[in-house]
Amino acid sequence: VKGNNPAHHAQIISIGHELLRGEITDTNAAYLARELRSRGVIVSSIHTLPDDRDSAARLIGSVLIRRGIIILTGGLGGTRDDVTRTILSRVLDRDLVVDGEGEEKLREWYRSRGRSFEEPDRMQAAAPSGGRLLRNEVGLAFGFYIHDGQRHIFSLPGVPEEMKSMFQNSVSPILDSADLTYPMYHYEYLNFMDISEYTLDRGIEKIVAGYGGVTYGTRSNSGMIRVRLETNGGLRELQKCLDAIERRFTESFIYRGEPRFEEVVGDLLRDKKRTLAAAESCTGGLLSGLLTDVPGSSDYFLGGVVSYSNDAKTALLGVSNETLTRFGAVSRETALEMAEGVLQRFSSDTALSVTGIAGPGGGSPEKPVGTVFMCLAARDGTRVNRRNEFLGDRATVRLRSANKAMGMLFNYLREC
Amino acid sequence: VKGNNPAHHAQIISIGHELLRGEITDTNAAYLARELRSRGVIVSSIHTLPDDRDSAARLIGSVLIRRGIIILTGGLGGTRDDVTRTILSRVLDRDLVVDGEGEEKLREWYRSRGRSFEEPDRMQAAAPSGGRLLRNEVGLAFGFYIHDGQRHIFSLPGVPEEMKSMFQNSVSPILDSADLTYPMYHYEYLNFMDISEYTLDRGIEKIVAGYGGVTYGTRSNSGMIRVRLETNGGLRELQKCLDAIERRFTESFIYRGEPRFEEVVGDLLRDKKRTLAAAESCTGGLLSGLLTDVPGSSDYFLGGVVSYSNDAKTALLGVSNETLTRFGAVSRETALEMAEGVLQRFSSDTALSVTGIAGPGGGSPEKPVGTVFMCLAARDGTRVNRRNEFLGDRATVRLRSANKAMGMLFNYLREC
Repeated sequence: VKGNNPAHHAQIISIGHELLRGEITDTNAAYLARELRSRGVIVSSIHTLPDDRDSAARLIGSVLIRRGIIILTGGLGGTRDDVTRTILSRVLDRDLVVDGEGEEKLREWYRSRGRSFEEPDRMQAAAPSGGRLLRNEVGLAFGFYIHDGQRHIFSLPGVPEEMKSMFQNSVSPILDSADLTYPMYHYEYLNFMDISEYTLDRGIEKIVAGYGGVTYGTRSNSGMIRVRLETNGGLRELQKCLDAIERRFTESFIYRGEPRFEEVVGDLLRDKKRTLAAAESCTGGLLSGLLTDVPGSSDYFLGGVVSYSNDAKTALLGVSNETLTRFGAVSRETALEMAEGVLQRFSSDTALSVTGIAGPGGGSPEKPVGTVFMCLAARDGTRVNRRNEFLGDRATVRLRSANKAMGMLFNYLREC
Repeated sequence: VKGNNPAHHAQIISIGHELLRGEITDTNAAYLARELRSRGVIVSSIHTLPDDRDSAARLIGSVLIRRGIIILTGGLGGTRDDVTRTILSRVLDRDLVVDGEGEEKLREWYRSRGRSFEEPDRMQAAAPSGGRLLRNEVGLAFGFYIHDGQRHIFSLPGVPEEMKSMFQNSVSPILDSADLTYPMYHYEYLNFMDISEYTLDRGIEKIVAGYGGVTYGTRSNSGMIRVRLETNGGLRELQKCLDAIERRFTESFIYRGEPRFEEVVGDLLRDKKRTLAAAESCTGGLLSGLLTDVPGSSDYFLGGVVSYSNDAKTALLGVSNETLTRFGAVSRETALEMAEGVLQRFSSDTALSVTGIAGPGGGSPEKPVGTVFMCLAARDGTRVNRRNEFLGDRATVRLRSANKAMGMLFNYLREC
């Protein structure tokens, strides 16, 4: 009965030398993995193989799964890179057959462009016997599909737009009609801050154990932890489990779902009808850059000052010379005056400031690299001020600082 | 004899369920492929495997090459995700041995944070017998190295910063001392701007044909085109070829080498003893953020103003109300006053401004999305002003604008 099948396994194989040279990252594999997963298919492995016939054929022979879905990308063009058809024909021991209708379409294309049509060009309409061609709505080379024993094999182009279009228009309908997707699969994201991945992981592990079929994974990125929960059972169990986790970690839980944190903070600013300005030293524009990367951010973000030098802190933000001399540019006091200064100059409802030592230079025994002060200023006199010692390289310290500053604003707005 | 070995083959294996679910793209594999390639090592395959012990062990067993370099990333943490040690111990049939010194370091770390130290935590200092631990300068878990028959196996953490640091500090020296790199291999990057990738590619193809053994690839990114040229032959042929390409494309050639453009611009500012300030509207801090992502940028970057609202343009940069009313915020005139205003307020030698429509909203028939004005102001009265219609999504338009603004500064500084 459709809808009651167990989850199927899938394997993704990318073919191409650019990937093996590290010239490009394999976004095709990530796209396919995400699309398959959202249909309840479990991706069990991803392989990147060279596009020379002999070694690719040998490697494919050794990795190919015996049953399930196999999706190959790349190596379908009419150039010397066209190897996937040949390799699969060898590995599956099936002759390559040129599809008459497909060949005619290719001929037309070449004719209309005044190009000569030769033998290698014909092969773009070939598939191992028993296979069927998949239309390419974006480019030239056809893909193909073969049902071989317990395997469903799809060969798609390597160009991302062609691959995506063929997946959506051809592969996805075949997966559905062959009952290879799994509609009982559901997932959701929970996002946390101010908690160690270790503590969160231990706590969630215990809670999840009480909900059959729910599994999870955590991922930490510059101060934020994203937890993905998924189930092959009902949506209700998943919802109950999500609620239980949120209740257990009220302090550190921030929001549900996939959006980036800057989008969530932006939505909250819009909902609460508050405007924001930012004064940045060590983040040097990164915080403003993140906030304005969100379409429509001009609704609530008025602007900011990047006060990298002390003179700029004084002239543009009104930080007093005495404060800078007595406490230093990286201090609680300077952070406070920066936030108050930018709040006043932009006449905003809220303001964030960040000053710290992002490294690798500039640290001292009292204020090592990773020392960052962040301040939130608001019209109602609320002042929050936090100190953290962030680990990581320059880029990580800066991103953690920006995230943490947004976290302070988020917590403030949530309660006002 | 060292230095005369043939090129070695390598295999990269990434372990982690996030990759198989498409939650993240595998930037680790691309990084390692690039680093290995630059040492003359040929990456013959990349595999992404799940982090559950049984299926990963089975898969690794089937793909592992018999000789050469094998680098695994991921699955080394102290959580239940810590599977790589166990799997390799099984596959290589070697017991896991905890390193005493390593364990002591871990204990200290846990003690200093008041956490209890338990059995799974100890395993972060374990390696299959005969292996040796690799220090983690950024995070906690150790990596390890085993020389097993004709295989050199390295296991590194999955967190990119930890992986990169361990590769540079530990793996690279081992590869060198074991004579696994290939000194006849050389490569260089050439960076271009203001030219189409198509035109550049056609031109370089012809030039390269005249230099035996030299191959190349181009990559376009937000207005910049990077060309990688490589050879397995002598350095002299490569140098001659590089010179010929630079001569042919004098107008659009910017610089040689791998550094990011913001580093090159920063070095030039330092060399020429000039300071810089920035006034940003549509880039919203991105330009300042890029410039300050470079260590030591406080030597030349004084700061900036993110003037997202019209009020901010007037109050903080002195853009006149008349200019804003008559020409609009996105105009040549506003860009000019923004640059002059920020130059004056920061007392900098040079200043850049950007104002435009990054999209997706805000476009009009006269000023469609992608319309951006950039201005360079300098003490000697030089004013440059350019208009571009950038294609792409919001993030791309913003990055192209920032790159183009830096390009204007670069061309100015190069000639002064």
